[in-house]
Amino acid sequence: MRILIDGHGGDLAPDVVLEAMILILEKPDPPTLGIVGRPEIVNPALEKYGLKDRVERVESEDIIEMCDPPALAARRKRNSSIHVGARAVRDGHWDALVSGGNTGALMAISKMIMKTIPGIDRPAIAAMIPSKHGGTLLLDIGANIECSSNHLIQFGVMGHCYREVICGDTSPRIGLLNVGTEDIKGTDVVKYAAQQLAKTDLNFIGNVEGTDLFTGHVDVIICDGFVGNIALKSMEGIARYILDQMKQELQSSIRSKAGAWLAMPALKNLKETLHPSEHNGAPLMGLNGVVVKSHGSSDAYALSCAINAACVEVRANLKTAIANKMNNMTVPA
Amino acid sequence: MRILIDGHGGDLAPDVVLEAMILILEKPDPPTLGIVGRPEIVNPALEKYGLKDRVERVESEDIIEMCDPPALAARRKRNSSIHVGARAVRDGHWDALVSGGNTGALMAISKMIMKTIPGIDRPAIAAMIPSKHGGTLLLDIGANIECSSNHLIQFGVMGHCYREVICGDTSPRIGLLNVGTEDIKGTDVVKYAAQQLAKTDLNFIGNVEGTDLFTGHVDVIICDGFVGNIALKSMEGIARYILDQMKQELQSSIRSKAGAWLAMPALKNLKETLHPSEHNGAPLMGLNGVVVKSHGSSDAYALSCAINAACVEVRANLKTAIANKMNNMTVPA
Repeated sequence: MRILIDGHGGDLAPDVVLEAMILILEKPDPPTLGIVGRPEIVNPALEKYGLKDRVERVESEDIIEMCDPPALAARRKRNSSIHVGARAVRDGHWDALVSGGNTGALMAISKMIMKTIPGIDRPAIAAMIPSKHGGTLLLDIGANIECSSNHLIQFGVMGHCYREVICGDTSPRIGLLNVGTEDIKGTDVVKYAAQQLAKTDLNFIGNVEGTDLFTGHVDVIICDGFVGNIALKSMEGIARYILDQMKQELQSSIRSKAGAWLAMPALKNLKETLHPSEHNGAPLMGLNGVVVKSHGSSDAYALSCAINAACVEVRANLKTAIANKMNNMTVPA
Repeated sequence: MRILIDGHGGDLAPDVVLEAMILILEKPDPPTLGIVGRPEIVNPALEKYGLKDRVERVESEDIIEMCDPPALAARRKRNSSIHVGARAVRDGHWDALVSGGNTGALMAISKMIMKTIPGIDRPAIAAMIPSKHGGTLLLDIGANIECSSNHLIQFGVMGHCYREVICGDTSPRIGLLNVGTEDIKGTDVVKYAAQQLAKTDLNFIGNVEGTDLFTGHVDVIICDGFVGNIALKSMEGIARYILDQMKQELQSSIRSKAGAWLAMPALKNLKETLHPSEHNGAPLMGLNGVVVKSHGSSDAYALSCAINAACVEVRANLKTAIANKMNNMTVPA
């Protein structure tokens, strides 16, 4: 197992990359790790963390900044760490690329270099949302701003395969994010997608609403990237707001301060449930290769979880599962 | 001031309607209240609560159920409490209609009967989202599933007027909900709306993201009803999930139970901040008349807040403010 990590991805790179690698290498039977980046930045960092003999190096020239427009970065910075990393995965030298960099650029470059699985028009980014009885997989969360019904159906297939081969679910329940559960609700694109999904052999449970993200009654929720991104960020926003308000309320009197001190371990658990580092590592699904996006502000532990997510995806052979499912669909998307 | 309330609106009608009326009538200088509904249901209820001499009655025949398709209900149930109520407001017998009933039907019927303000193509439903430094007005939250750039601009005007005349804000900050703050982000509809909004005399601060709903950095956030509805329900879902998880965590040990007991008043305040009954009463903006939607599961206190919201809207003359602003826009929408 060979996992290549972007040495320039994320706010805290390259240090956080090397700290995450140490966490991975400390565990039994670790994968081979590589770092892709500019030598004058990567080499001193490897030296600093004592990793120069334990981590492989792949040299790149350009650096894609968080503010770079994805399409432009894809065309102009052809020797960026993401380009070089994606080519290394495409050519079979590495099994997966993990990056905390510019999401749009990572998606555009990966698609350009690796291409998509036959039958999949567009890759999608997925996020695991904490919910009752485990988690709910939401996709797309921002790769595709406008989607056709067929794209949504393909997202359903990818979500289905992810739950089957990664989470071990049998017949995962697929829902379509809509403004109501009734058939008459939603745009024409969403209505037609629902009709077609009902004809497939996926376990399509119909329309679901925003509130269903957390109930655990559905395993995969599909939507276009505009809606998915706004739903995800609204949730992040309100979760942060609630925790801030809670902190403020708990500081408001001596009684509540004492209560907060006693309840601290419970409240810490709550916080971890909401922002689980374990869930870091969003798969870019539908590509002819494994690419995992780590959150740009991840700490070493969270990044190590994204690296683990890449290992799991390689081992489960998600790519082949999606290709097979697309081939065998009763209603071709 | 004369406020008419739908006697068949909401899960707990008609009892909750009469209980809310008692709360309103107990206060000094109350408005004149009316109830519209089927006499065989409304009359015994008025009797039961001792309100038959204090509340006016308007008779209707049909009842619109929560599950009725809005367009069908609008065409077929022409003597429903909503139809009769909307006509009574249109004809000047009442100043406002408040209903906890079927949102889509309330919107369709109100639009059909009252028509929109000149320059406004479609009414919108707005919700006040609790946020730092007050609240953020989000619209549309579900009346318009697909919107043109012009519709979004009109929502901006309506939001501006609401903040000015209802909240007393000077030059309220208007943001457009998008997947990123940069100009290149979003659909063509959203991009064109942003360009046009920047040319108006509204205080348009540009694109905002889902996380900005709670920061208090923006007063009005505009979006189409599909996105707004999903954002709102996702937030409701995660807020409920967090409170459930908190309860569960706080019950997990004797120590945390003691902490929870001490922190109870603070946690109760937190809950009220998240689900503020005071915020009940979503205005249907852009109509030639005042219509306020109360949440279907509201209790008497929450419904009384929606009735108050209707009084405030009538007094502030929001309708005229919107009409004037549409007339005087530097860039006509």
